[in-house]
Formats: sequence, structure tokens, C-alpha cells
Amino acid sequence: MATAGKVIKCKAAVAWEAGKPLSIEEVEVAPPQAMEVRVKILYTALCHTDVYFWEAKGQTPVFPRILGHEAGGIVESVGEGVTELVPGDHVLPVFTGECKECAHCKSEESNLCDLLRINVDRGVMIGDGQSRFTINGKPIFHFVGTSTFSEYTVIHVGCLAKINPEAPLDKVCVLSCGISTGLGATLNVAKPKKGSTVAIFGLGAVGLAAMEGAKMAGASRIIGVDLNPAKYEQAKKFGCTDFVNPKDHTKPVQEVLVEMTNGGVDSAVECTGNINAMISAFECVHDGWGVAVLVGVPHKEAVFKTHPMNFLNERTLKGTFFGNYKPRTDLPEVVEMYMRKELELEKFITHSVPFSQINTAFDLMLKGEGLRCVMRMDE
Amino acid sequence: MATAGKVIKCKAAVAWEAGKPLSIEEVEVAPPQAMEVRVKILYTALCHTDVYFWEAKGQTPVFPRILGHEAGGIVESVGEGVTELVPGDHVLPVFTGECKECAHCKSEESNLCDLLRINVDRGVMIGDGQSRFTINGKPIFHFVGTSTFSEYTVIHVGCLAKINPEAPLDKVCVLSCGISTGLGATLNVAKPKKGSTVAIFGLGAVGLAAMEGAKMAGASRIIGVDLNPAKYEQAKKFGCTDFVNPKDHTKPVQEVLVEMTNGGVDSAVECTGNINAMISAFECVHDGWGVAVLVGVPHKEAVFKTHPMNFLNERTLKGTFFGNYKPRTDLPEVVEMYMRKELELEKFITHSVPFSQINTAFDLMLKGEGLRCVMRMDE
Ligand SMILES: NC(=O)c1ccc[n+]([C@@H]2O[C@H](COP(=O)([O-])OP(=O)(O)OC[C@H]3O[C@@H](n4cnc5c(N)ncnc54)[C@H](O)[C@@H]3O)[C@@H](O)[C@H]2O)c1
Ligand SMILES: NC(=O)c1ccc[n+]([C@@H]2O[C@H](COP(=O)([O-])OP(=O)(O)OC[C@H]3O[C@@H](n4cnc5c(N)ncnc54)[C@H](O)[C@@H]3O)[C@@H](O)[C@H]2O)c1
Ligand SMILES: [Zn+2]
Ligand SMILES: [Zn+2]
Ligand SMILES: [Zn+2]
Ligand SMILES: [Zn+2]
Repeated sequence: MATAGKVIKCKAAVAWEAGKPLSIEEVEVAPPQAMEVRVKILYTALCHTDVYFWEAKGQTPVFPRILGHEAGGIVESVGEGVTELVPGDHVLPVFTGECKECAHCKSEESNLCDLLRINVDRGVMIGDGQSRFTINGKPIFHFVGTSTFSEYTVIHVGCLAKINPEAPLDKVCVLSCGISTGLGATLNVAKPKKGSTVAIFGLGAVGLAAMEGAKMAGASRIIGVDLNPAKYEQAKKFGCTDFVNPKDHTKPVQEVLVEMTNGGVDSAVECTGNINAMISAFECVHDGWGVAVLVGVPHKEAVFKTHPMNFLNERTLKGTFFGNYKPRTDLPEVVEMYMRKELELEKFITHSVPFSQINTAFDLMLKGEGLRCVMRMDE
Repeated sequence: MATAGKVIKCKAAVAWEAGKPLSIEEVEVAPPQAMEVRVKILYTALCHTDVYFWEAKGQTPVFPRILGHEAGGIVESVGEGVTELVPGDHVLPVFTGECKECAHCKSEESNLCDLLRINVDRGVMIGDGQSRFTINGKPIFHFVGTSTFSEYTVIHVGCLAKINPEAPLDKVCVLSCGISTGLGATLNVAKPKKGSTVAIFGLGAVGLAAMEGAKMAGASRIIGVDLNPAKYEQAKKFGCTDFVNPKDHTKPVQEVLVEMTNGGVDSAVECTGNINAMISAFECVHDGWGVAVLVGVPHKEAVFKTHPMNFLNERTLKGTFFGNYKPRTDLPEVVEMYMRKELELEKFITHSVPFSQINTAFDLMLKGEGLRCVMRMDE
């Protein structure tokens, strides 16, 4: 409380240039302005999206920047107009927000808030177009409104989910992004029935969370599809009953799945970002009732192509963003699912390092080792 | 009853060759075999599908054939094993059936019966692979299991909906195909909310029935899209509030619709069969919640192409067959909607001719005049 209204000096991992190791620096974090909240981050995890914007290949680079968007923290102070949060509240920052006033926030279906929808190119706060981070007075840019690779960060109130203070932040921090994305894709969008057959394309953290959702929904057969055969062993912990590697077959993998399942799977969730996997995921669902859900982020030039008869034979194709969860409205309940032991998060957290070793977390992800590496800010 | 078990001689319109005027002939109609029903047709209407298989362009021709699939009639006699229908029952024949035993019939969602799904190439009964029609002992082929251009026809019991005997068959006969297809596409699949905005692509009988469904569902803005500007006037009777002709614009029609509606329509139903209209119908729906439904039957080589981000931004694409109605289970209730005056059918029936003038009905359709021409079998 003594810090409220004042600039805080603290440690942050700064990305000075594309692809160069982050360096832990002392940064100044300005007080939150109207509708903003300053959060003390306790745990943050690394997600592919951080690595992607750190590599900045084929992007307009935004550097120096503080990355990070999967995290858990505690409110330090709030700016003008913030009434829903007070210092001490436990929160999960989310890269996409919920203003609660736009057409999307008012719709039952959408979570694509007009005001606070993800914007990967913006490095400043939306209120005044300024950064809250400086080093010796020089601004350091924000990342997707969260910048959790810092002991303190400033976030729009619409991008913070207030959660049960009993929930262990070192575990539930991973619900900030990928795990909720995969879980919600299955539970909120594909909605598999008890006893049904589900295919999951891509067995990274997002795909395994989608798989966990299929298991929770009571699917009786869960087919994992990945180009990397090493993914099968781990996937078994998430309910994978069958594994298909498209490389093991000469015919398109959708045909393999249709044969294995006597006409197609009841639902499929694509978590690869690869356009061929997207097409396969759609074409492998059963006619009459099959539903396919796209989650992976495709290349800019990717084109989804299929014969329209595949739709006319009563198949459905949908896409989802952040698992269709509204961050403020729905995320607290996902935390409760963990608290009630309906959802296991421990198996997603394969590594844990002190914040000072953040570059180790980057190395693990670049090598494809493990699912989530959680960093402890106080070390 | 006196005719049960005997061959019936009656009038039928026979298509001897592709594209040649039909000729009214005396045909012999054999008694129904196991699971079959012989029906006295009282009214039959003409649909594009009849014309399409009569023209037989680019098809394996199946001639001589008795076309016709939109009709209303009365059961004359039933074959072995038929327990759900008795002589005197009023029925609507349907080109696609419902066996009530396969996975599709048992699914809540599908109407694509494994046993009785439409088969346009088959000219015989599925029971014994024979035709029930002959002229001087020579077989005349069936069409989509219905062949309603005959005073008597034999139909599998799974392709007959038993309806309220009070319902006027000269009106409800049009529920056999196109009208139910369009209506169901909106009511069962797109499911627009009260007060929402709906776009209908293609304002033929199917599109206007889809529009009628949008009006019944309480849509407040209904945008008709057609390449033919003459379609607007008629469409107003079906609730059309705005009309867009893609030819009047240099930019793609989906962009025009997105601008007109401040972000996109809530739902779109495509009833053209044209692949560009299919893509436009999908790309004009609002992100976050928009749903597009494909109804039109595309060319064999058509490819549906779109950027996958259009899905990821939470749009849904579905296709439907016969408006997702299960013919035996659901069609009787559609007839009741007409009986309760919730659904108006009179405005679809723009022409009526004696059966002997069936070629006039073909001429009207080829000229694109009117929506449905009902033929009176007893004249
Ligand atoms: N929509 C959202 O809200 C959202 C949020 C987070 C992540 N994502 C996206 O989800 C996707 C998955 O994320 P992740 O972190 O799990 O990634 P990941 O790289 O850990 O996993 C992807 C997996 O897909 C496999 N794969 C790649 N191409 C394949 C193909 N053609 N067929 C089968 N398997 C294939 C890879 O071998 C890998 O195991 C990414 O595209 C990511 O951008 C989307
Ligand atoms: N899925 C099913 O169960 C089912 C059943 C019956 C009919 N159908 C199909 O529904 C479609 C419509 O049937 P109908 O009898 O109403 O046909 P129709 O020919 O009377 O009407 C089609 C309309 O679409 C318009 N059109 C064509 N291309 C267009 C484009 N690119 N943009 C905008 N408008 C365009 C035409 O001008 C015409 O007015 C057909 O493809 C038919 O095969 C499907
Ligand atoms: Zn909003
Ligand atoms: Zn992420
Ligand atoms: Zn069936
Ligand atoms: Zn028809």
C-alpha cells in the first residue's frame, strides 16, 4: 500500500532485440491510470506466443519489450474508476479482455471484446497511448496488455480475472492462456457427448488441454494425431486411447480416421496452426452430426479448402479464440474446476525455474521439451 | 381396397428421353412388396430437381423414367411388414427416408438415413432391385424412391410421412421438398434469434422458404441477395426488408453486407448452389457469433475456399439436407404449423394446372416463372 501512487522499481526480463536472450533489468513501473490496475506478479509461465513475438520473424518488431502473458498475481493498487478490484485481490492477467459493454461482451456467444481484443502490435496502454515501463526514463513496450515478465506490471482492469484467493497461483497461472484455450475449445465449442469419439490434432499444451476437456466430457475414445511420435506417451496421461501419425500413412489422415471409426469421429479439435491439419480435422468428422473446431493460429496466406458437399452432409466447422471463455466472467469458474479437483493442472507443469533463469525456459520451449515451465518471481 | 394385391393401370407422365417433353401413358403399377406402400397421388408439384434429372446433362441417364417427388396422396394398399400405415392414410412422399433404425435415424441431429438416403441414380426399389412400373411388361424406372408423376406409385414406407388427414393436400404437397428444405435450414440450423439480422442468398422457392423461416423466428432485418433484380418484389411478401444485387457492386457482396450491417449479419442461409454465393454467405456473418448455413447443391468440382481466420474469429459454417427434418418424425409437425396458420403456403403456389398439362409446368420452370406449379392428378 505504501507503494500506491508511486513509481515502483523492480526486476523485469527485457527483450531488447528480436531473438536475443532476455536480460533481467531494473525497470520503473508507473502507477495505474484510469481503469488500470498495477499487479504484483508471483508466477509466470512461458507460452509459444511469447517466443513467437520474441523471434519476431516476418513481423513489425516492437522492441525493447517486456513479454509474458500467462501468470498469476496480486493487485498492488488500482487506478481511477476501478471498482471491481481492490489491493490484495488475486488475479489472472489475460491477453484478451472483457469490457462488459460492447456487443461482443453482451453477446452470450462471443468473447471477442471490441475494446480489449488481443492486439499483438500495440506496445502501449489503450488509455493514453503510453507505456507504464521505463528504464532511466526511456519507455519499454508492453505485450498483449499483460507483460507479465516483470515483478510488477500495469494491466487494464478488463484484462484481469479475479479468482478465488485460496487457489495456488503457481498452478492456476497456466489457466491464463493455452490451457484454457484448449479446454474451452472442447468443453465450450466442440461439446462432445458422453461416450463419443474425439480426435485431437496437435499434442502440444493446447491440444493436451483440449484432450483433457474430452476426457472430462466423458468421451470414450480419444484419438491423438501428431507428426511427432514421441507425443503419444505423454498424451496417454491426458486420456489418449489411440494415436495416429499422418507420416505413417500414404492416404490422407482424414481417410485413416474415417476408416478407424466407421464413418468419422463425432468431433475433432485442431490445435496445430497447420492448414493441412485444419482441413483433415474437418474432413474426418462424421456426416450427419460431426463438429470440427479450429484453434491453431494459421499463416497469413493459409487457405482453408474443402468440397462444399462436406458441409451439406451436415458437418459443422467452427473456430474459437481463448476457448470461447470470457476472461472476467468465466475464468474464475475454471479455477474452481481445479479447486474441486475436476481439472488437473499439475501434469501440464513439467518444469519450474527461478525468474532469473527465464532464458532456460526459452531454451526448453525451443527444444520442444515439456509443456509448461513456471517461473517463480521471488527467486 | 378392391385393387389391393392387384396390378393397377393408371396414367403417368413418362420421360422417355433426356429433355424430351413427357408423355402421359397408361402404366401398370405392381402391388407393394415388403415394407412398401402403394399411394394414390392427388397432387404433385414440380421442383428444379425433376427438371435437372429430366435434362440429364452430364449424368448417367436413367430412362424411361417417371419423375416427380413433391406430392400429397392417400395410401391405397400396403405390403408385408408395414404396420405404421393403413389404406386411407394421408401421406407426403419424401425423396429421402427415415428407417428409424440406423445410427443417423437414432441420432438427434442427423436426417441422413443410411438405408434410405437420397439416391438419384437408382431407378428401382431397394427391396428387390426391380421397378414396380411397366408399360406392356417393359419396366419404367423410378426416381428418388417417389415417382409422383403417376396416379399411383409405390414407395418405401420409410419415405412416407403420415400427416393430419384434415390438411389440404393441394397445399401441403409442397412441403415434400423445397419449402421444407428452406424453412428447416433457417428454423432448425441457422436458428436466428428474435430481432436479429439474416441474409438469404438466392430467392428461389428454397430461399424464400428460408426467408419465411427467418420471419417466423422474428428476425427484424432480412436481406435478400440475388443476381436477378426481379426477385425483390416477390421477396417482400416473404419478409425481405433489404435487397442486394451483387452485380450492382464492384466489391465482393460480403463486404457490402458487412458495411450495411456494421460488422456482419447474425446469420446467413445460402440457397443458390453457386460456390461464390456460398463463400460470400459465410464471409458476411458477424465475428463472435455469426452462423452461415449452406443449402444449395454445388457443382461436383466446386471448392469452398476461405481464410481460416474467418473461422477462428468465432464464425460457424454448417450445411443441411432437407432442412434437417427427419421426414417421418418431423414433417407431420410442419403440416401442423400450416394448419395453425403459423406458416403460409399459398404464396409459394403461383400456378396450378391439370396433370395432363405437365409440360406447361416444365415450361414455366424453364422460363423461371413463378415458384411452385401444383398439378391436379384427377384432371
Ligand atoms: N486460438 C487461441 O486462442 C490460441 C491460444 C493459444 C494458442 N493457440 C494456438 O494453438 C496452437 C497449438 O499451440 P501449442 O502451444 O500447443 O503448440 P505446440 O507447437 O506445442 O504443439 C503443436 C503440435 O502440433 C503438431 N503438428 C504440427 N503440424 C501438424 C500436422 N500437420 N498434423 C498433426 N500434428 C501437427 C506438432 O508436432 C506439435 O506437437 C498454435 O497454433 C497456437 O498458436 C491458439
Ligand atoms: N439441400 C437440400 O436438401 C436441397 C433441397 C432442394 C433444393 N436444394 C438446392 O437449393 C438451391 C435453390 O433451389 P431453388 O429451387 O430455390 O432454385 P432457384 O434456381 O429457383 O433459385 C436460385 C436463385 O439463386 C440466384 N443465384 C444464383 N447464383 C447466385 C449468386 N451467385 N448470388 C446470388 N444469387 C444467386 C438465382 O438468381 C435464383 O433466383 C439449389 O441449389 C437446389 O439444388 C437443396
Ligand atoms: Zn467488450
Ligand atoms: Zn499464450
Ligand atoms: Zn435410417
Ligand atoms: Zn425437390
